[in-house]
Parts: sequence; structure tokens; C-alpha cells
Amino acid sequence: MPSTTDPSRINLYINEVAPRDGFQNEAKFIDTDDKIALIDRLSNCGFAKIEVTSFTSPRAIPALRDAEAVMHRIRRHPDVLYTVLVPNARGAERALACQIDEANLVMSLSKSHNRANLRMGREQSFQQLQEVVAVLKRTPVLINVSLSTTFGCPMLGDIADDEIWRWMDRFAAIGVHGFTLCDTTGMAFPSQVQRICEGARTRFGEQQLTLHFHNTRGMALANTLAAINAGVVRFDAALGGLGGCPYAPGASGNVCTEDMIHMLDLMGYRTGIDLTAVLQAACLLPAMIGHEVPGQVLKAGRRLDLHPQPEQLQSA
Amino acid sequence: MPSTTDPSRINLYINEVAPRDGFQNEAKFIDTDDKIALIDRLSNCGFAKIEVTSFTSPRAIPALRDAEAVMHRIRRHPDVLYTVLVPNARGAERALACQIDEANLVMSLSKSHNRANLRMGREQSFQQLQEVVAVLKRTPVLINVSLSTTFGCPMLGDIADDEIWRWMDRFAAIGVHGFTLCDTTGMAFPSQVQRICEGARTRFGEQQLTLHFHNTRGMALANTLAAINAGVVRFDAALGGLGGCPYAPGASGNVCTEDMIHMLDLMGYRTGIDLTAVLQAACLLPAMIGHEVPGQVLKAGRRLDLHPQPEQLQSA
Repeated sequence: MPSTTDPSRINLYINEVAPRDGFQNEAKFIDTDDKIALIDRLSNCGFAKIEVTSFTSPRAIPALRDAEAVMHRIRRHPDVLYTVLVPNARGAERALACQIDEANLVMSLSKSHNRANLRMGREQSFQQLQEVVAVLKRTPVLINVSLSTTFGCPMLGDIADDEIWRWMDRFAAIGVHGFTLCDTTGMAFPSQVQRICEGARTRFGEQQLTLHFHNTRGMALANTLAAINAGVVRFDAALGGLGGCPYAPGASGNVCTEDMIHMLDLMGYRTGIDLTAVLQAACLLPAMIGHEVPGQVLKAGRRLDLHPQPEQLQSA
Repeated sequence: MPSTTDPSRINLYINEVAPRDGFQNEAKFIDTDDKIALIDRLSNCGFAKIEVTSFTSPRAIPALRDAEAVMHRIRRHPDVLYTVLVPNARGAERALACQIDEANLVMSLSKSHNRANLRMGREQSFQQLQEVVAVLKRTPVLINVSLSTTFGCPMLGDIADDEIWRWMDRFAAIGVHGFTLCDTTGMAFPSQVQRICEGARTRFGEQQLTLHFHNTRGMALANTLAAINAGVVRFDAALGGLGGCPYAPGASGNVCTEDMIHMLDLMGYRTGIDLTAVLQAACLLPAMIGHEVPGQVLKAGRRLDLHPQPEQLQSA
């Protein structure tokens, strides 16, 4: 807990990733109009950033085959950065045609996870992302690199800290603007998070640092506080806690936006986010995607959403 | 996060409450033999304490109407304290006949919650518990008082800190040995937990202090770390995360034992608990109670329970 720092002086910046990271994992195709309506709602919630979609091949990720339509038809809020996943130079060109603010480039620090997820070796991924950087560097578009399995790989186990710094160094050298350290399958734990975040902040002070947690083993909110303790102020989160993980069927997905904001608000951190509006948006998810979501505040209500006293006791 | 204290020097003491707090909330009656078999298993997991049952009226809580049979037939481990819920002097006599190690006395700090839960005013509860203390003081049995809604009442909202200290003072004055501060409906948040735990430790250094969290709004593990930060070393937890809350249908229950131990182990705290044995016990719950449980490590596996690489990639 930040006992020495007043939370009310700490501005936190939340990146809502449900439209990309969440919807990508849904079996059912989410209607383009529904996606746009949801993103437009999210644009008015106070998020610093929204990850809108992915410019992957529509064959690889059919769930997001409407990337262009979504990007062209959302109503942009001037205070929100609109970011998209860009896997390769072709995707970069498609994304640029849609006036993105930021491109999010993804590779895994684990050899095995990169192969399982992206069907190529890490070196090949780096080359491909280098091409993306080359395309984007001619534009004002910001470049963020998301490093999957930073806190552990479900096949190989722990990633050595030096391996994290080595890949961050390579991306820093080609001029990316930010890093997202991703706990892709919920293996991070608080003391590890604090150590790695402190290391990353010390080594890469030039780049913006974002943390991306999954709640697979229930630690996402504890990890969030550990990262804040280490000076991190930027977080990914997904409405409803969307975004599953194939290695943990039935387990929770991304850290849930409304659960995270609910806790941070109570602690006095400044997120700039309208929790009521976020909860109203989250309420729409089950009907939109056809199943319940893992988010807990949606079920339980906010801490001070009080209940009436049982009737027979009111007169007692 | 305890950045100045080495976790490996901190012994934590876990009280497993599923047999009482969990089973009490199940619609289906859990077979007496199943209860005993589970408690016998739990006795070999390294818990400091197990809350076995409740000596409430069998009409009030039929789920635990087999309190005597369970207490008489479990095989006690010499390192485990066996505690039971005792609501009144009659229950105390019944419990004493079963050679309990500790009695857990419960009242709510919220007037409305006490009425809703115990059907009486707080003063009447205190008088009744005072009678229990009078009965138990003639014996070597330890006396713990669990204070419900310490971190907020679902009907009245926040409880003033002074109200917490006032009731703790009254119980300390009649000689109880320990207090459990209960977050009965998951309203606690980390900075509040740290403040109240620091206050309680400062004021009531003579009594053992235990924290009882619910994961209703996802904050149970973050709250656990906040309490440890404030010097707390004793925690209630329920196998599988059993123990619902009528004010949050569909929400999680008590903090899940195996999820809590999984995190604390990773961080290097000494819990003395065999997580493998706990997970084996938790595995039995769904068949025993007839439904899935909220625990996440049970679904996702431990952090380093690795998965094989996809076959087509092994040769790649």
C-alpha cells in the first residue's frame, strides 16, 4: 500500500481493452453496430485510451473482421486515444487509413507462447514488428509494444528478468513510445509485479509503462496495487472482465474495469473515470455477448449501494 | 506491500471456516460423514484453526444440526485449534460437552444487520454473549468475538471507527481472548483495512486479531495484503471460497483458502499450509455440495502448473 504517497495526488490512466481483447475471445460475432455503440459509450466514461479493434487478417481473427467499419464509424472523444492492435506492415497500412492514434504491437517473451499464439519464432515476430515500426515512424502515430507472458508462460514457466530487459532494449532502440507488460495468463503475483515494475521503470524511463493483468488466479487487484506502489500509473482493463485464456477454461479473464475503478475510487486515486457510466456500459455486455461476465461489482453493486432493511424489521 | 519486512520471517495463521461458515449457507444438507471426512482432511493441511460447526438451534440453522456428531467423530490433530460458533449459554453448554478448544461469538456492529441476522438488538446480543463468556470463563476454552459488518453494513453503510472500538472495548473488558473483524458482505477496501487494522492493533494489543474477508467485490486478496501490511497475521478463509451473502446473489463468498495460500506462498510468507493437500480437499467440494465453487486456482491451476506445448509446435 502506498503509505507515504497521497492517492489523491496520483492520476491513473486506464486503457479499456474489451472491444479488442475481450471481443476477440468471444465465440459469437458481436454485431458491428453493437461494437460501435459500446465504444461510443466508453468514449464518454473518462478512459485515457480505448483499444478499439485489431488489424489482423480477418481469417485469423474473424471476430474483428469489421475493424475498418468500426474505426470509421465510432464518434471520437477528443480526450481519448484510440489504439488498435497491429500485427504486421499490412495491418499498419490498414490502420493508418483509419486515422488511429496509437498502434499496439504484440509479441510474447516466451518462445513457446509466441509460437502457440502467433505461429512464429520471437525473432521473426521482432522483424515483422520492426517493419510495422518503420511504417509508423513516418507518421505521428504512437507505437506501444505489448509483451505477453512477462510474468510467466503457461508452457515454460518463469521468464528471466534479463530476458524482459533484453526485448525491451531492442524495442526501445527502434524508437517505440511505450511498453505494456502483460500478465497474459494470470501468473503474476504482487511481490513479483513490484520487482519487475521497479526494474522496468528504472531502465525505461523514456517510455510510457502500462500494466496488463488477468484475474485468472484472483490476484489482479492485488497486482494492480503492487504496480501502483512501484510507480506505475497506466493500466489495461476490460469491461466486465472479458477476455478469456485458453490455458484456464472457466477462469476469469482480464482484470475487470469496473472492479478496478471501484477499488481505486474507494482508495482515493484519481482515475478520471465515471464509474456509474462504466457500470451502465458493463450491464449491456451479457445480452450483447450471450453469457454472464466475471465482473463482481456488476453482480454485487458498489460498496455503498445500500439495501433496504427487511420489511418486518423496519417496524421493530 | 511490505517492502521493509521480509515475508519469510512472517508466520501467518489461517483459520479454515468452510465447515461452518461455508456449509451453513448451502441449501443442501451436507452429509455428516462427508463433513467429518472433509474436516479430517483439513486437519492434515497445516491450518492453525478450523471452525468446525455451530451450536446454534438446529431449527435456526438446520444445515449444522449435526454439530455434536461432527465434533465427537472428527479426528483431532494436536496442532489444530477446533473452534465452533456459540450463540448463547445453551450453545456454550452443548459446545463444552464436545471439548471445543475455542468458542466463536458473533454479533454485528450494525444495528440493522444484527437485527436482520440475529433477530435482536445489539445490546441484547451483547447480554447474551456476556452469558456465554460467563459460562466459558470457568473453563480453559478460548473466547473469540467475531464482529460482523466492521467494514460496512449493506443496509446502513459505513460503521464509524469509534463504534468499532466501543464494542471491542466492551468485549475486552469482559475478558475475551481474540477479535475477528469481519467484512461480512465484501465492503472492505485496502486503505480502509490498513487504517482499521492499525487502529485495532494499537488499541487491543492484548487480544489476538483475525481478519475475515469476503471476495464479493474482488478485493479479498488485496485486503489481505493490506492487513498484513498493518501487522495482522491471522486470517479466516473458506475452502473453495464458500459462504455466500444474501445481499449479493451470484457474487463470490468468503476469501478462498486455496487462492489466498497460493498468493501468500508465492510471496514467500510462511503459512505452514500444504497447498497441494488443500487443493485436493477443495476438489471434493463441487460433488459434495452439488455446485461449482468460486475459487479460481482450482479452475486455473497453480501458477506453475505448466501446460504441454501444442503438439504441432513441438516438432516445429
